[in-house]
Amino acid sequence: MRRVLFGSCLLLFVASVNAQSDSVFLSKLAEEIFRHSNAYNNLYSLTKTIGPRLSGSPQTYTSEKWAEQAIINAGADRAYLQKTMIPHWVRGGQDQAVLISGNTRRSLAVIALGNSVSTPPAGITAPMILIHNFEELEKRKNEIKGKIVFFNHPFDPDFVWVFLAYGEAVPYRVDGASRAAKYGALGVLVRSMTSATDNYPHTGAMIYNDSFPKIPALAIGLQDADRLVAASATQKEASIFISTHAHTLPDTVGFNVIGEWKGSETPEKIITVGGHLDSWDPAEGASDDGAGCVQAIEVLRALKATGYKPRHTFRVVLFTDEENGGNGAKAYSAEAKAKNEQHIFALESDGGGFTPRGFSFKGSENQKAAVQAFLPLLKPYGVYEYSYGRAGADVEPLQETTGALAAELVPDSQRYFDYHHAASDVFEKVNKRELELGAINMAALLYLVDKYGL
Amino acid sequence: MRRVLFGSCLLLFVASVNAQSDSVFLSKLAEEIFRHSNAYNNLYSLTKTIGPRLSGSPQTYTSEKWAEQAIINAGADRAYLQKTMIPHWVRGGQDQAVLISGNTRRSLAVIALGNSVSTPPAGITAPMILIHNFEELEKRKNEIKGKIVFFNHPFDPDFVWVFLAYGEAVPYRVDGASRAAKYGALGVLVRSMTSATDNYPHTGAMIYNDSFPKIPALAIGLQDADRLVAASATQKEASIFISTHAHTLPDTVGFNVIGEWKGSETPEKIITVGGHLDSWDPAEGASDDGAGCVQAIEVLRALKATGYKPRHTFRVVLFTDEENGGNGAKAYSAEAKAKNEQHIFALESDGGGFTPRGFSFKGSENQKAAVQAFLPLLKPYGVYEYSYGRAGADVEPLQETTGALAAELVPDSQRYFDYHHAASDVFEKVNKRELELGAINMAALLYLVDKYGL
Repeated sequence: MRRVLFGSCLLLFVASVNAQSDSVFLSKLAEEIFRHSNAYNNLYSLTKTIGPRLSGSPQTYTSEKWAEQAIINAGADRAYLQKTMIPHWVRGGQDQAVLISGNTRRSLAVIALGNSVSTPPAGITAPMILIHNFEELEKRKNEIKGKIVFFNHPFDPDFVWVFLAYGEAVPYRVDGASRAAKYGALGVLVRSMTSATDNYPHTGAMIYNDSFPKIPALAIGLQDADRLVAASATQKEASIFISTHAHTLPDTVGFNVIGEWKGSETPEKIITVGGHLDSWDPAEGASDDGAGCVQAIEVLRALKATGYKPRHTFRVVLFTDEENGGNGAKAYSAEAKAKNEQHIFALESDGGGFTPRGFSFKGSENQKAAVQAFLPLLKPYGVYEYSYGRAGADVEPLQETTGALAAELVPDSQRYFDYHHAASDVFEKVNKRELELGAINMAALLYLVDKYGL
Repeated sequence: MRRVLFGSCLLLFVASVNAQSDSVFLSKLAEEIFRHSNAYNNLYSLTKTIGPRLSGSPQTYTSEKWAEQAIINAGADRAYLQKTMIPHWVRGGQDQAVLISGNTRRSLAVIALGNSVSTPPAGITAPMILIHNFEELEKRKNEIKGKIVFFNHPFDPDFVWVFLAYGEAVPYRVDGASRAAKYGALGVLVRSMTSATDNYPHTGAMIYNDSFPKIPALAIGLQDADRLVAASATQKEASIFISTHAHTLPDTVGFNVIGEWKGSETPEKIITVGGHLDSWDPAEGASDDGAGCVQAIEVLRALKATGYKPRHTFRVVLFTDEENGGNGAKAYSAEAKAKNEQHIFALESDGGGFTPRGFSFKGSENQKAAVQAFLPLLKPYGVYEYSYGRAGADVEPLQETTGALAAELVPDSQRYFDYHHAASDVFEKVNKRELELGAINMAALLYLVDKYGL
């Protein structure tokens, strides 16, 4: 009960007494970032000198070194590595698929899904069967054996918040192979998780159900997916050839890269800000999630540059292996619990460097009430709404183990899945000012939480 | 007083009684646009088959034919042309500038400003003088004679709403030449009106003050502008060579292209929705303002497709010559006044096909109060705020002559000036879903105004 009352008092306090001085400070912070941000340069360097950063790849380790240096350059008191085990899936070669109808052969834009097995060296050729959803798969289970299943479940365009369309479609990527293998399929092609107008295939994690044979699984670009639909309608005899080379090596080590800036009043209480350093292998990982990494680093740089002295200890955490198991987040939250660390707030950015619109929170009612008062101060910088219930894959485990309020920047979602896990996720698709506006809102929220507590 | 009361009642009426049915209709409208929009295809066709549409250029007329057909295809009862006179400035050749320091010569990315005069055929070579603002120009007026003035006034990065930075910087493009000619300058180079990270020069209208000699005027890309700053600091002897070929022909005819959809209850009352068909000549004019044109056409198509019967008469107006004098808007508003037409609302989109955030209104307090009740219905589609005071160059004249409420879609502004009036303003920079979200919010607002009146 005391906390509820405190929450209410805080709300009045913030809204009535300090709105003006906070507004002045946030304006100074925004100026610092718009004028002197290093986020865009850091993103260039991460994406163009290191590039794709698949868990277990050599770039896992070069990017960790890059991150340590970038965090130190931004002014952290110290930077250190937190070890964990991460998967080590290897693509192994160039993925291929060919549509065969009569005498014509047409190459298709495909990419093997993360964790999928390879075809035999000679590839697999089998009749194609077009399946729109799992219900249809069940109804037609007797037709699946010996075929390559083409799951063509498009994004529902009616979701304004595109992540909802992703959530609805992604089971076909994650579970499609085993669902089809259960009925004797030899391989699956999955319509890419995007509504882009181009033909890039989009990879991402899939998971086998050990009860069924492991069959190759590939994503296909949308233009080619539509070609398969047309072929399926007109050519009953259409077959597909697929060839992939992937294999899974034993788990290996990976590291969260952590920068620390000691608090001046209650250094034992920790505020975390982060993104994830890994990416899928076709992508430079600019939007997913180089943007979040460089924004988190920029928050530290900018707050230091304004002369701010944090009450709590700030940690910049660049998580390893968000994409293929979330092992970095698990390690961070497990160590926090094991050491009985006091975490009050953890914020991540993993929705791309697009223009910000909101924050999403996961925590207690009191925690949510406390941040409510900050919203009017963020509106001049583009954040006008809060949502609740989720807070991103890298900070939710910490919320669960420590009770910290977890949050995620919510940028505009329209472009995110155009590039997500595809070769089109490059530096050039990130706009400098949009990236900086995201960092401004993150820095502003962190400042307010640090100043007023939770 | 009666209108004030009516306004208040309307507000309650909308908010309490019809919010649910309106919300259902808007959802249907959004689905229609997300699933069946022709806006993106129309934009492709306008930008890639017609291309740049400078006032007076051959494309002025091919685009008018294109627009008539597109409006008819969208379902208008009829399409017609409204004649006006428009300027006819011709670039005449390839603009050039070269930085000369000692024995080194470096080509610069430049483009002559609209309405500027040509250099002599051999070009002009003169010492460069770097001037940061008009105050400095006045202070150093004795140093200007015989020189080429380089106005280097950057966008102020601190404006979150980037149009404010443009408003502050654009006098250097519009008035810089005559201000410098007053003190004997031979030509001007103006830092492009952008904060892009690339080197494209951005053209746009300039205006001569007839009291002073007309001197050539060019915009320069930002990377090269920064090179001139560096050269100015290190090389006292730096000169510039400029060569342009522009000339102004007598005014010619241009046409607003108008589509009409007759109202079912009060057809004499008109609601206008539009964009401008012209563009600057280096650009495909995708963001400025092909996007607005195809959104206006899409509003008509989508409302018809839902089976909606408008109470008022809808007009889609694709204005001619917004960029170089606003003669299309003047003609439309003048004819409306001359014919004593009853206009209740006019909405334009000229801020690019970027994800929408708001609407800006210009009109009476009663009109503004009436639309206030609609805002919660738009929020699910991304419009969360209204602003007041301006409504866009093509509808403000109509507001002034007829008293109609004028409004403008307010998309996110971060990327607009990256492409504005430059060769980078191409179809590929417009995102399909963002474009459609803009059209959805426009259609939603127009439906609500049509249903409840103003």
